[in-house]
Amino acid sequence: MEVKEITNRDVDFAKWYTDVCKKADLVDYSSVKGSMIIRPLGYAIWESMQSVLDKMFKETGHENVQMPMFIPESLLNVEKEHVEGFAPEVAWVTHGGSEKLEERMCVRPTSEVLFCEHYKKIIKTYRDLPKLYNQWCTIVRWEKTTRPFLRSREILWQEGHTMHRTSEEAMAETLRMFNIYKDFQENYLAIPVITGKKTDKEKFAGAEVTYTIEAMMYDGYALQNGTSHYFGNHFADAFGIKYTDSDNTLKTTYQTSWGVSTRMIGALIMVHGDDRGLVLPPKIAPFKTVIIPIGDVSEKLEELKDSLKNHNITFKVDDSNKTPGFKFAEAEVKGYPVRIELGKRDLEQDKVTLVRRDTLEKISVTFDEIIPKLEELLEVIQKDMYEKAKIRRDSMIYDADTYDELKEIASTKPGFIKINWCGDVACENKIKEDTTLKSRCLIEDESVTGPCVVCGKKATTRLYIGKQY
Amino acid sequence: MEVKEITNRDVDFAKWYTDVCKKADLVDYSSVKGSMIIRPLGYAIWESMQSVLDKMFKETGHENVQMPMFIPESLLNVEKEHVEGFAPEVAWVTHGGSEKLEERMCVRPTSEVLFCEHYKKIIKTYRDLPKLYNQWCTIVRWEKTTRPFLRSREILWQEGHTMHRTSEEAMAETLRMFNIYKDFQENYLAIPVITGKKTDKEKFAGAEVTYTIEAMMYDGYALQNGTSHYFGNHFADAFGIKYTDSDNTLKTTYQTSWGVSTRMIGALIMVHGDDRGLVLPPKIAPFKTVIIPIGDVSEKLEELKDSLKNHNITFKVDDSNKTPGFKFAEAEVKGYPVRIELGKRDLEQDKVTLVRRDTLEKISVTFDEIIPKLEELLEVIQKDMYEKAKIRRDSMIYDADTYDELKEIASTKPGFIKINWCGDVACENKIKEDTTLKSRCLIEDESVTGPCVVCGKKATTRLYIGKQY
Repeated sequence: MEVKEITNRDVDFAKWYTDVCKKADLVDYSSVKGSMIIRPLGYAIWESMQSVLDKMFKETGHENVQMPMFIPESLLNVEKEHVEGFAPEVAWVTHGGSEKLEERMCVRPTSEVLFCEHYKKIIKTYRDLPKLYNQWCTIVRWEKTTRPFLRSREILWQEGHTMHRTSEEAMAETLRMFNIYKDFQENYLAIPVITGKKTDKEKFAGAEVTYTIEAMMYDGYALQNGTSHYFGNHFADAFGIKYTDSDNTLKTTYQTSWGVSTRMIGALIMVHGDDRGLVLPPKIAPFKTVIIPIGDVSEKLEELKDSLKNHNITFKVDDSNKTPGFKFAEAEVKGYPVRIELGKRDLEQDKVTLVRRDTLEKISVTFDEIIPKLEELLEVIQKDMYEKAKIRRDSMIYDADTYDELKEIASTKPGFIKINWCGDVACENKIKEDTTLKSRCLIEDESVTGPCVVCGKKATTRLYIGKQY
Repeated sequence: MEVKEITNRDVDFAKWYTDVCKKADLVDYSSVKGSMIIRPLGYAIWESMQSVLDKMFKETGHENVQMPMFIPESLLNVEKEHVEGFAPEVAWVTHGGSEKLEERMCVRPTSEVLFCEHYKKIIKTYRDLPKLYNQWCTIVRWEKTTRPFLRSREILWQEGHTMHRTSEEAMAETLRMFNIYKDFQENYLAIPVITGKKTDKEKFAGAEVTYTIEAMMYDGYALQNGTSHYFGNHFADAFGIKYTDSDNTLKTTYQTSWGVSTRMIGALIMVHGDDRGLVLPPKIAPFKTVIIPIGDVSEKLEELKDSLKNHNITFKVDDSNKTPGFKFAEAEVKGYPVRIELGKRDLEQDKVTLVRRDTLEKISVTFDEIIPKLEELLEVIQKDMYEKAKIRRDSMIYDADTYDELKEIASTKPGFIKINWCGDVACENKIKEDTTLKSRCLIEDESVTGPCVVCGKKATTRLYIGKQY
């Protein structure tokens, strides 16, 4: 049950991942199969993500609401593609107390239908548009196999659902939120991402276009880490959501939805973590630093705590009665960006040691230099973590010009492969059957010349493919 | 469906309440029976409450976590009193996708058993104590009749669950959180509260002691608006949660739990609201003021917006193309503490009108005086709203020295009644049968002399009774 030693990352990446999740006290298991307990550090990371994103959403005019967590079966059935996509994996509530329900209800796997039912009631004229709603909630999908943060029966996430007067406006919203996600992941999570449209086969059940944020994990696997969907008036048609326009004609609304989840915590771990545990980017770390007092340094400790508070630098103090060595290891497991070793003997010579988590570099400063050096380090670490992840990611992206080349890379080199594709789902399926690689997203900033690597017909687009979580 | 006019509060209080909930855009209904949609203003009020409380919890050393939302039936059954209290009102999940579950699970009605199972795993020695966890989540109780915020199948709340080394420490925690709730409701919600222990009959299923926060609504009914429970080692015994103490002996932990919910929004409405709608206390209002521009005042409007931002005063602007009269009414329905009427003609004479929501008083100021006057008003309104509610509440608390007097007051005067009570549940039951009044809480700061008003035996305590939501 307990993790004594974290498995070596290059020996068994899957085991390394769950070891880090457990050892860093991010999650625990319970008798509720397929669900996880998110422990204090895991939840604090999520709160940190929420607070940045929520601010971004509100600054762009979005309002938070809360829909019911249940969906009556008849409501789920309104939109055909949608119900086919989700019905096989929902949890059904059939009884309230000892009474059987007249109609069973599922726990929401996503809330398009609930928002649509509400929008139909509250949207009457063009003056009611746009409606820009978001909700933070837990959704349920009855997964067979689960992994902490990556695939769980219960998922904490946010789901934005917006309604617009025109197609152009809805598409602009789809892209705006897509760019917010990209900005957040690159600039806060320090994760370089690959972005673009999903293929028709891989898009969301009910969407016209799905934009995806794809991150590459340390092992070269892809993690779909956020999506933004343009629905056109697909759902609005099914639900009959119409508004009276300024020209007094009745028109159908255009819709988007977009979401990110605690899966992003999985990405943080798998992009930045190492054999000692978690490595948190400073801008998202709930605690920027941990102070480890060695010997009786209470006076200087209080002074440092005050000083950190005055500079709005969040911190923890490890004043347990464990050995310094043990505390250093624990600080490393938990990924604090910088640790401050506040030792009695060092302080007599006005020396304090700062240790960067990302590089393990030790920096000796005087007591008065702690704050400025720390502030500098937090910026540098943020930048360096992104650069390091980007270099690694870029080194694992390959071009395949022929199908043999594709298969050879797929079987020998972890990472993403860029190919020419004709757009036919048959070719997409063949790649998956032969190599297990799936489409990540279309590459829109590269011109396409030459044949599809699978069928040899004229290619119409460039495509990223890769193995996925 | 739509509310044209808010029903007069003194004519039909119940209808007035639901009218305000709808007309102020706090909630809406959907096809999910018994659940409500919390709309932007309603949810913003909840976020405002959450942000204050969460800070209070964290400042007192609590950490947020997230437990699963499901409880397997066998886990719910571990503690007898608890399961008897909750099993009749839970929602049961019986199927995942098309498969029947081996064991059905309920959606959590509260999470004691989930926390206990986790605590059993992670608490080993006295060094692991105390554990001070809280979670923000949605719970489900299968209520037959529901009312927005007061009684709903889905409830948004927080539930703190803590484990301690000693009984004294657990009791201190129970009281600490109880006092935080009291402080929050009095100083932020401007609601005067009555506090004390619940009787054995009314305490939480599984608790040794329940402390309650009771607020009196405008109609004299009580709303139980927060509870803090001391469990002793009731659950810890059932779950076998033990720790090795410093003397190397194995001991059982002591436990608390405490919670408040979106029900507090119901209290806000029913304590402060009036015939024009919602009246929000400034410290909890998501937007402290609303600006209503009249005519083309765009330059001054921008100046005012900047100025409000610089002073961290949250605001909305109603720049819709409705008439000023309509906008004033809407500002009143939604309860903004102060509205700013920014009129073109007034501005030519350097005049701006501020209107207090609580008293509807109009105050004329120069443009430069807006911010200081507004800041002053927000403080005054907060204080005045509390005082007004307290005077009203105090005027509806009665003493009954005999059972006849009790029955007479109960049938003629809405409010709370203070009585002498022997402590026997038979007397408590008789009062309820004869008058529908239930025990609110024990009165601990009044000495008791004389007989129980019901049976005439020696009274052992003073007790508040009242009708309840």
